[in-house]
Amino acid sequence: MPSEPPPPVDAGLLSPVSVGRDAAVSDTAVLDALVTAEVALVRALAATGLLDGAAAESVSAEFGWTSRGCRDHGFEVTALASAAAAGGNPVIPLVSEMRRRGVGGDAIHRGATSQDIVDSALMLVSRHAVDEIVADLARAGAALTTFAQEHRGVVTAARTLTQHAVPTTVGARAAGWVRGIRRATRRLRDAQSQLPAQLGGAAGTLAASADEWGPDAAAALPAAFAAELGLAAPEAPWHTERWPVTELGDALVQSVDALGKLAADVLVLGRPEIGELSEGRGGGSSTMPQKRNPVSAVLIRSASIRAPQLAATLHLSAALAVEERPDGAWHAEWPTLRELLRLALGASAHAAALAEGLVVDREAVARNLAVSGGLIVSERLARVLVPRIGRERFGELVASTSAGSFAEALRALPEAGDLDLDALLDPAGYTGLSGRLVDDLSDGG
Amino acid sequence: MPSEPPPPVDAGLLSPVSVGRDAAVSDTAVLDALVTAEVALVRALAATGLLDGAAAESVSAEFGWTSRGCRDHGFEVTALASAAAAGGNPVIPLVSEMRRRGVGGDAIHRGATSQDIVDSALMLVSRHAVDEIVADLARAGAALTTFAQEHRGVVTAARTLTQHAVPTTVGARAAGWVRGIRRATRRLRDAQSQLPAQLGGAAGTLAASADEWGPDAAAALPAAFAAELGLAAPEAPWHTERWPVTELGDALVQSVDALGKLAADVLVLGRPEIGELSEGRGGGSSTMPQKRNPVSAVLIRSASIRAPQLAATLHLSAALAVEERPDGAWHAEWPTLRELLRLALGASAHAAALAEGLVVDREAVARNLAVSGGLIVSERLARVLVPRIGRERFGELVASTSAGSFAEALRALPEAGDLDLDALLDPAGYTGLSGRLVDDLSDGG
Amino acid sequence: MPSEPPPPVDAGLLSPVSVGRDAAVSDTAVLDALVTAEVALVRALAATGLLDGAAAESVSAEFGWTSRGCRDHGFEVTALASAAAAGGNPVIPLVSEMRRRGVGGDAIHRGATSQDIVDSALMLVSRHAVDEIVADLARAGAALTTFAQEHRGVVTAARTLTQHAVPTTVGARAAGWVRGIRRATRRLRDAQSQLPAQLGGAAGTLAASADEWGPDAAAALPAAFAAELGLAAPEAPWHTERWPVTELGDALVQSVDALGKLAADVLVLGRPEIGELSEGRGGGSSTMPQKRNPVSAVLIRSASIRAPQLAATLHLSAALAVEERPDGAWHAEWPTLRELLRLALGASAHAAALAEGLVVDREAVARNLAVSGGLIVSERLARVLVPRIGRERFGELVASTSAGSFAEALRALPEAGDLDLDALLDPAGYTGLSGRLVDDLSDGG
Amino acid sequence: MPSEPPPPVDAGLLSPVSVGRDAAVSDTAVLDALVTAEVALVRALAATGLLDGAAAESVSAEFGWTSRGCRDHGFEVTALASAAAAGGNPVIPLVSEMRRRGVGGDAIHRGATSQDIVDSALMLVSRHAVDEIVADLARAGAALTTFAQEHRGVVTAARTLTQHAVPTTVGARAAGWVRGIRRATRRLRDAQSQLPAQLGGAAGTLAASADEWGPDAAAALPAAFAAELGLAAPEAPWHTERWPVTELGDALVQSVDALGKLAADVLVLGRPEIGELSEGRGGGSSTMPQKRNPVSAVLIRSASIRAPQLAATLHLSAALAVEERPDGAWHAEWPTLRELLRLALGASAHAAALAEGLVVDREAVARNLAVSGGLIVSERLARVLVPRIGRERFGELVASTSAGSFAEALRALPEAGDLDLDALLDPAGYTGLSGRLVDDLSDGG
Repeated sequence: MPSEPPPPVDAGLLSPVSVGRDAAVSDTAVLDALVTAEVALVRALAATGLLDGAAAESVSAEFGWTSRGCRDHGFEVTALASAAAAGGNPVIPLVSEMRRRGVGGDAIHRGATSQDIVDSALMLVSRHAVDEIVADLARAGAALTTFAQEHRGVVTAARTLTQHAVPTTVGARAAGWVRGIRRATRRLRDAQSQLPAQLGGAAGTLAASADEWGPDAAAALPAAFAAELGLAAPEAPWHTERWPVTELGDALVQSVDALGKLAADVLVLGRPEIGELSEGRGGGSSTMPQKRNPVSAVLIRSASIRAPQLAATLHLSAALAVEERPDGAWHAEWPTLRELLRLALGASAHAAALAEGLVVDREAVARNLAVSGGLIVSERLARVLVPRIGRERFGELVASTSAGSFAEALRALPEAGDLDLDALLDPAGYTGLSGRLVDDLSDGG
Repeated sequence: MPSEPPPPVDAGLLSPVSVGRDAAVSDTAVLDALVTAEVALVRALAATGLLDGAAAESVSAEFGWTSRGCRDHGFEVTALASAAAAGGNPVIPLVSEMRRRGVGGDAIHRGATSQDIVDSALMLVSRHAVDEIVADLARAGAALTTFAQEHRGVVTAARTLTQHAVPTTVGARAAGWVRGIRRATRRLRDAQSQLPAQLGGAAGTLAASADEWGPDAAAALPAAFAAELGLAAPEAPWHTERWPVTELGDALVQSVDALGKLAADVLVLGRPEIGELSEGRGGGSSTMPQKRNPVSAVLIRSASIRAPQLAATLHLSAALAVEERPDGAWHAEWPTLRELLRLALGASAHAAALAEGLVVDREAVARNLAVSGGLIVSERLARVLVPRIGRERFGELVASTSAGSFAEALRALPEAGDLDLDALLDPAGYTGLSGRLVDDLSDGG
Repeated sequence: MPSEPPPPVDAGLLSPVSVGRDAAVSDTAVLDALVTAEVALVRALAATGLLDGAAAESVSAEFGWTSRGCRDHGFEVTALASAAAAGGNPVIPLVSEMRRRGVGGDAIHRGATSQDIVDSALMLVSRHAVDEIVADLARAGAALTTFAQEHRGVVTAARTLTQHAVPTTVGARAAGWVRGIRRATRRLRDAQSQLPAQLGGAAGTLAASADEWGPDAAAALPAAFAAELGLAAPEAPWHTERWPVTELGDALVQSVDALGKLAADVLVLGRPEIGELSEGRGGGSSTMPQKRNPVSAVLIRSASIRAPQLAATLHLSAALAVEERPDGAWHAEWPTLRELLRLALGASAHAAALAEGLVVDREAVARNLAVSGGLIVSERLARVLVPRIGRERFGELVASTSAGSFAEALRALPEAGDLDLDALLDPAGYTGLSGRLVDDLSDGG
Repeated sequence: MPSEPPPPVDAGLLSPVSVGRDAAVSDTAVLDALVTAEVALVRALAATGLLDGAAAESVSAEFGWTSRGCRDHGFEVTALASAAAAGGNPVIPLVSEMRRRGVGGDAIHRGATSQDIVDSALMLVSRHAVDEIVADLARAGAALTTFAQEHRGVVTAARTLTQHAVPTTVGARAAGWVRGIRRATRRLRDAQSQLPAQLGGAAGTLAASADEWGPDAAAALPAAFAAELGLAAPEAPWHTERWPVTELGDALVQSVDALGKLAADVLVLGRPEIGELSEGRGGGSSTMPQKRNPVSAVLIRSASIRAPQLAATLHLSAALAVEERPDGAWHAEWPTLRELLRLALGASAHAAALAEGLVVDREAVARNLAVSGGLIVSERLARVLVPRIGRERFGELVASTSAGSFAEALRALPEAGDLDLDALLDPAGYTGLSGRLVDDLSDGG
């Protein structure tokens, strides 16, 4: 009979955006990564000739090393979590547990410090999570590219500051979404490819390793360690120069920003009175049977409202990273980076689903475009008419007419008698480069 | 055999500040609160005469109603979490599950909307969590008050912008901590006492209830519901006027701020070269056997770096709360408020432990006070000497002397011949109102 | 001829929300407040009998003391700003300048430290600014109360998660705005009434004053100083317990939040396709002659997106307030608090104008309400019909009909033959307590 | 006589970190950039053959075009700032003023929208500001590289979580500062080189230009416009895909972070009891004659506490960038980006000064290193002794000794009789790769 109840867990009840999509950053994944980092260190010693290969293999076997990291190592998340509080990080109790197994002897954690393991594990977790995020961004991007191409010629009202401005196309707007997602993806991939392993020993100098094996051997260790983990070899230890964390955080937020813009458009344009866009499949309501809520867009938006402040915390932690290991700023990074990864995982998964199901109601698009009765091309008519009737008279004409009467007033204008007003008033004739904005997507633009 | 692995959980592996201290805000606690809110609604119907009392009792019994809310209701966190993603909130699947039990019939969730349940449950969880936070703040405050009184006369260097300024006392500095904690406690208690239940129906008008039972009966429901939950009766529904959330969030951050200031002082003054303060019991290191890390202060500080940005997200959500239920801003509140509660729970628990074990090294205090060799009272000497030798000469005297030679230079000054320099140079004679700052604590000041 | 160009200024070119409304927090106002604080200190010495009254009067006269603080003191903002950089704050050069005038002698800045003056001046500036903010909130609140009463019976679609939910009234929605503004106003007034003067001397102990005049006289000074400034007497110095700053900051953000919610509604409901609300007077466009941009709402919203992160910085500064004067955290407060005041000043002024001009298009309201053809009251019909045809069949009926055919399908339902479907389908019959929500405003609710 | 007082200005009285260093982002600079953007558009028309070259030259001449942008154009900041409030941006009144001059006729603002001008002007201002920031970062980096090399062999205590950990060198720590600054510089330069001009017309389609001159000519305009401004040619309009703003913002924060870390170290290590580092030239105090405040470090730190939240606001604005011009999110960017530029300008200038004057007190370094009496190399001794006496006995030995007695206890240990304890206890023998960390700086590492 257990003497204590199991520790409280967070299974995502209040985090619908990421629930079911955040396995890559779960405590289980983090624990796997911590064990993986410890084993990778032993393997790196062997790879650089400092340890017998067989010893490294037996350590690898004991702790479930696989090409995707350690699994089935037998350690348990909740016990370690509790133990982590005493020393302030989970590595101290983990190393004790690992040593207790009696395999690998002194090789376990040799020359390393807690921060080496935590930082490297977080980079490992991040690399895996970014793979998933990028895959979902690619799905979303591909679906939206097709969407843009399919709606290349669908003329719609461009809205600026909420008001109808001039015509554009549904495709051109979607091309903007694609560009935002592509740009964020590039930055994420770029950040991911640079995620460095951390190996500096107690204070970044690898003193223990250098003392034992000499400086050249010690200097070779970080790259060997990184190779085992599939991370970038660090130029230098980054225990208190935290750009690897903030650059990743910035790229994650950028990806959520790009999806937030998509969600914002879907939410506004999917309002009943506008009705131009809808998620293919909406969520229900606990009481109102007719409701089809734009759940994916809502959840993406919730993530986009939260993510920027998490990245700010990462920057603050970087700025407050005093001396050789900061007194709190380092600890503030862990849950914050993880939550940011969760938001990006959840938002990108929802965005992929949203993009693949996104539906345009062309009738609604056309109806809304017509709402201003031609005023939507008043910019165009200004160019033609101002030289004929002056800026002031044109302004008065616009101000004095409403949606219904603008075209009529134009037709009554003697100075416009020779103009092809039907053509001038056709929104489809005033979409500028909207087609090119779609076509250029094919060039990777 | 389960077809799927269990969903990933967060047991706090990367959140050492709150692990073991956050049961009050766990998914289990949130689920209990959601069930409690649903049952309280049924009970409120009975309390206002709209439902048979026996029916309410059988619902209460079925779902484990106790004076502290529902327990042992048989619902499971991870399944609900997964289901929550589809509709965007956990109430929709919960209500289905509750209805499936066949108890209470139509009374379950009658006239309510998901937001009524989520918002009320979060207030309930918050109320319980604040009880724990306030208890720990009280422990910390009491211990620090005693500490301040015990060190009322221990003269120490006041530091401004990191440099020695004038003398103060260890007690006066601690009195500042106490005042910060007391002020935050008052605000937390005040916010807690106003945490309102939410009951507005689909859009804040209680239309379904009014339709069924008439406006007077409907109007009586929110207060009855609040009474069942032990929450404040709402003046009006606050579905999109989110001050109950932001006021609570602000008070939580204020409490973490106050503890962050304490931690900042402990961390700086506990540095080996300063050595004035230490946590009674420090944490170990994974490699350096001699280290005694100030773990509680470090973890409190990590919380204090994170909390403000979480509160900012709550405010953003309030500001973006469009129409009758916001499209993402509402959802952004849930995990954010919970994490903020977690930080306050963890920081206050660590602060209580830290405060109760806090140790002063009086020798170190005295040694540091003497470091400037009298320059620390140069403000005092300026007042006495400037009238005699002018501001300029006094400034030169200070600038040209060092810690070792200031007193000597003063003694060599003919214009100071009649002064009792020993007394003037004694830091203990220049602590101003530091004693009163401690004594006033007894008056609740 | 000046040897240097004038220093760069920020006249608000990029801050349209606050330009023209931020005189109360301009550099001129801050400088006036700094001088006022210095003179108030001299006057406090006189008021407590420590200085000759005539000396205090000559200092007052020299530096332009009035009942609203010092004016026409002859100091110049840009020169002081430049000088402030060297010592890190503007008081050091200001005191030099004041002493150079040769009036008041040693009484200037006696026993005070820079922080006493900066903090007190910022509180003074804040008090004046809050007066203006509260006045504009009152204007907005009054106008919106009238608006709510005038539109008490205007039935409109309540929107949740962007979708039509059930009916509500324009008045009930407006009552929510009023409640948000009233609550924020109460908190602002409450914070304002507690804004304390700061007087602690070099490190919060008033050592210099106690040394010169004895502890009782020194202890009486802060209250006397506060009285001269019209600020609250501090319970204790708050040089490193920064709740006066964060509580004010929180209240300011809360007021901007409340206005942000108003702006969010106006922006969405003022979209051309919705068209229910409009600012009486919109802004023009640089190119599109027909546009009437909702400028006030846009600018309020811009403020509401910015304010929360500024308040977060204030909290961070509070949490990092180490020892007796923090090494940067204090300096981070000044421009942040000022910018937050600016945003609240600008947002409240725009809100007052917006509220006083807000126009409802009742036709559009009615048209939109009808858009779902009765589905907006499906919650009501569910209550009536589910007992007759079961939840499942009702759900199918709703799912299979569209806006146009719902009522028709109901009429074709044999089980509904005896129902007064016209009445049941009338949104005006299903607005619940919306009228009470307006009426209760008269009770200050 | 003016009927109104001049508008309130912010000359930096409360912003000592940036005062005197922010001319590049002043309202004057912004106004110059706005005029420059308008003139560049006219010149781009000429460059692409759409306008007579002479007309473009007369416009250029009228508005003071130079190779560094427009100067002496005769427009006035405060009047435009006031006018900006009405329409929500400063371009509307500026274009009116420019047209009033009667030069250039219809060519002024042809085909552009306000956002084209504001966005391009902000990029222009940013480009200039980044030049200054990077120059100061280069100064700081160069000085700190020399500093690192000069102190390559100065052994000092590495501190982790505030406590002495193992030895490192002053040079190795400084090498970390250099690496952080270099990384941030690369990112800033990278962001700067990609700062794009914005030219999309009313809604990003360049409809007016395409209508007038055909799509090919219109499509050529953005690159020509960018060339006139010295900005990158945009791949597409970015009116609502705001990565150019957030990527710049992120890089600016990263630079402030890197400087914040430097400041944090200087502030801690410059405390009187530690005394290892000092700014060459400190600031004075308004009352305490002996104080030498680390003003540059304090002000840098104040910037580093503020910057992250400003970048968060930029990300929020990006995420909320709905449709073709966001309703407030866009406006939130302007003052926020400018303030972020100001902080980076101020922090980098102070960092350059700080770096060039930074002084090490080698005696203090050595004294502090000795404080633990050998315990600082206990990690090393553990490696040697644990195999001889076991982990447990070694732990007891460390726990039972203090700074003074550790070496003595070791010497009394029979198992250590054959060890060269003097060598093992010498911190200089345990600095690992600290030398390489400095040497690698020469390789650009």
